Amino acid sequence: MRFDIITVLPGLLESPFAHSILQRAQKKGLVEIHVHNLRDYANNKHKSVDDYPYGGGSGMVMQIEPFAACIEKLQAERTYDEVIYMTPDGQTLNQHIANALSSAQNIIILCGHYKGIDQRIRDVFVTKEISVGDYVLSGGELPAAILVDAVARLIPGVLSDETSALSDSFQDGLLDAPIYTRPADWRGHRVPDVLLSGHEARIAAWRDEQQLKRTQERRPDLLND
Amino acid sequence: MRFDIITVLPGLLESPFAHSILQRAQKKGLVEIHVHNLRDYANNKHKSVDDYPYGGGSGMVMQIEPFAACIEKLQAERTYDEVIYMTPDGQTLNQHIANALSSAQNIIILCGHYKGIDQRIRDVFVTKEISVGDYVLSGGELPAAILVDAVARLIPGVLSDETSALSDSFQDGLLDAPIYTRPADWRGHRVPDVLLSGHEARIAAWRDEQQLKRTQERRPDLLND
Repeated sequence: MRFDIITVLPGLLESPFAHSILQRAQKKGLVEIHVHNLRDYANNKHKSVDDYPYGGGSGMVMQIEPFAACIEKLQAERTYDEVIYMTPDGQTLNQHIANALSSAQNIIILCGHYKGIDQRIRDVFVTKEISVGDYVLSGGELPAAILVDAVARLIPGVLSDETSALSDSFQDGLLDAPIYTRPADWRGHRVPDVLLSGHEARIAAWRDEQQLKRTQERRPDLLND
Repeated sequence: MRFDIITVLPGLLESPFAHSILQRAQKKGLVEIHVHNLRDYANNKHKSVDDYPYGGGSGMVMQIEPFAACIEKLQAERTYDEVIYMTPDGQTLNQHIANALSSAQNIIILCGHYKGIDQRIRDVFVTKEISVGDYVLSGGELPAAILVDAVARLIPGVLSDETSALSDSFQDGLLDAPIYTRPADWRGHRVPDVLLSGHEARIAAWRDEQQLKRTQERRPDLLND
C-alpha cells in the first residue's frame, strides 16, 4: 500500500514514520510512504502557497494551484483509490473506516494548515474528508500520521502477531478488559486472583464480563451501534 | 505550561515538537515539552519494560515499576495538575477538554505500547484517561502529540493571531464556512459572488448560513449538544 502525503511541513512527519511499526512495515516492503513538499509546486518565486481569504477574516487560505499541480502529477503516474483531506469537519475516523481503507492500493492525503484550504480543492479533487476527532489542531500533519498508522497496522503482515490487531479495542465493538503483568503484588496492589488461577475458562469468562462492564461504564454508545 | 511525556519511543516525538506552532511556543517560553525514555527507569540490565500478560493472551503488557519510578521522580520535583494516560478506552478528546486543560500548569502524559499498560498504573497514578478517537494505533505517542498540539495552541500568546483560535471549528459549536482565496476563477470554478461583493453584512450573513448548513448536513449531532 502506498501513501502520498502533501504538506507544507514535510519535516514534521519525519520521526513518526521512522520508528516502530511504520518503520518495520516500510522495511518489509508492505507500505510505501512518500511525503511531498507543497512548496515545490508553488507557482511563484517566493514559494508561497497561501493567500488572504476572499470576503475578509483572519488567517490565510491555502491556494488551489499548488495542490492541483501536485495531485495531477501523482495521478498521471498511477491510479489512486482516494484523495483524502484531513479536516475537523470531515467524517470522524473510526475503526470501520480504517478497516475499509486498509484494502486500498494508493491513497493521497492532503494536510491543511492556517485556516484551511480553498473550497475548490475539496470540490474538485478530494474524494473523502476525514477528521480524527472533534478538536482543532495546528495542521493536518499529525492527523495524516494518525490515519497512516491506523490503516497500515491492519495490512496483513505488518503486525508481527497476527492475532494482535483482531483482539484490539473496537474490533469486536467492546473495550478491552484490564490487563496485568508481573509483579503479582506491587506495594499491596494485587493482580486479580482469577488471572493467577490458570483456569482458562474462568479467565475467559472474567475477561468477557470485564469488557462488557467497562464498555457499559465508559462507552454505552458502543453497545447501541 | 509544562508537558512531561513518558514513552518507550522518545525518537518518534522529535519532529512533531520541532516544527510550526509547537516549536514557536517553546521558543517563546510559553510551553516546555520534556520527553522521558521509559527504558531509563527499567529495573533490569536488559532495559525491558514489558512482560507477558497474567492469564495468557497475545501481546505484551507494560510493567508498573518503570512508570512508577519516572512518575514519582517528576512528582517529587513539582506538582502536576493531571497524569493523563492516552488510551482508546478513555474519555474522547474534544474542544471542551482541550480548553479546560489549557489552563493547567504541569501535565504528565503516559504513552502506552504493545497491548497496553498494567491496570494498576491506571488505578494508582492516572488522574485522567483520554482517547483521541475510536480507532486503534500502534502506541500512545501520536495521541500524546495530538493532545499537546490541541492544548498548547489555546495558551494565550502561542498563536500569532489571537482571534484565530476563537474562530476555529467547534469553538462556537458549528463547523466552519467554506473559504476561498485567489484566483477568483480557476478553470471555470468560481468563488461565490457574495465573497467578492465587498458587502460586509451580506458576507457575514452568508457565512453564518453556510456554517449552519454544513453543520446540519455533516454533523447534526453538534446542534443537539
